[in-house]
Amino acid sequence: MDKQFKSVALAKSYLLLNHGPVTLVTSASAGRSNVMAASWAMPLDFDPPKVLLVIDRHTLTRELVEASGEFALNLPGRAIADQVLAAGSVSGRDGDKFARTGLTHFSATKIAAPLVRGCVAWLECRVIPNSANQLGHDLFIAQVLAAWADPQVFSEDRWHFPDAGRTTIHYQAGGSFFSTGESFACQDAESHQK
Amino acid sequence: MDKQFKSVALAKSYLLLNHGPVTLVTSASAGRSNVMAASWAMPLDFDPPKVLLVIDRHTLTRELVEASGEFALNLPGRAIADQVLAAGSVSGRDGDKFARTGLTHFSATKIAAPLVRGCVAWLECRVIPNSANQLGHDLFIAQVLAAWADPQVFSEDRWHFPDAGRTTIHYQAGGSFFSTGESFACQDAESHQK
Repeated sequence: MDKQFKSVALAKSYLLLNHGPVTLVTSASAGRSNVMAASWAMPLDFDPPKVLLVIDRHTLTRELVEASGEFALNLPGRAIADQVLAAGSVSGRDGDKFARTGLTHFSATKIAAPLVRGCVAWLECRVIPNSANQLGHDLFIAQVLAAWADPQVFSEDRWHFPDAGRTTIHYQAGGSFFSTGESFACQDAESHQK
Repeated sequence: MDKQFKSVALAKSYLLLNHGPVTLVTSASAGRSNVMAASWAMPLDFDPPKVLLVIDRHTLTRELVEASGEFALNLPGRAIADQVLAAGSVSGRDGDKFARTGLTHFSATKIAAPLVRGCVAWLECRVIPNSANQLGHDLFIAQVLAAWADPQVFSEDRWHFPDAGRTTIHYQAGGSFFSTGESFACQDAESHQK
């Protein structure tokens, strides 16, 4: 793991996905790897942490995830939004998608799938096989094995967003995203420090 | 349905949830109704549209949803964030949560669960029973039967957010939310108008 990034406690890793950011899904199997954009990812449980991810049955990512039983959820910063859109628009079957999108990667710690540079947090995940959900709904349940974040962006269980380029983003439609916006605390926030 | 709100085409209703906003889940059965805050809701399929929702087994909402097979996902605007936090902090078992939070409601069109005023979009949903997911993961799959939006906030398949009070919000932790932030289009957005 790149030394500039810090481990996120597993029981707190749901906080990385709680606000609904778009993700890049990375996968690898038998010497092939791929990256795909996905908005349909969210937490399922706290501890042990689990996530849900919808993976269309026609994608190369689906093939690699089914073969390896692993994937990573990478949370892109706004600075690489163009590449996120590209990763959601072309198929890895038509050539190496890292090369085509210009996205670069580094090694994960628990899984073979690579992690994407320019992201601000990462969740390394192992699929909990569930053929009814996978075949019936393209729905994958996975356990989070490790979680990482750029500590300037996420630390002590909170997001900070020090600059626009490292702000998480949310997919809208038609090539448009939202940046994660202003943070605000509610009146009785003191009673909700958990 | 309140005349000021407009129907959202079912096949486009996933756009209401695509960016990961927090939701209020409403439910009703046998004369009781409830409202609960939930971040763990997302689209599962386009057409017919389906959604995923995690409902903790100890909640009154769980009891009402299991009894009725229905719920609504209400998307609150920032103006009612305090009430959203309250709806996520107290239990409907301890008294009428609408009365306690100050949230008010109006009638849905396809389900008995009420819809919450101060929200900017609503999805009326019917559970697709799946005991393995419900019992094993507190996970509900539901079909969207009807979807509605404040047309000043969502129309022609896009969000507009005319003022801060009607901006959707994303739950962070510890009583803090993010507003949905700046909208921006990517370079090759023209090829993604779908």
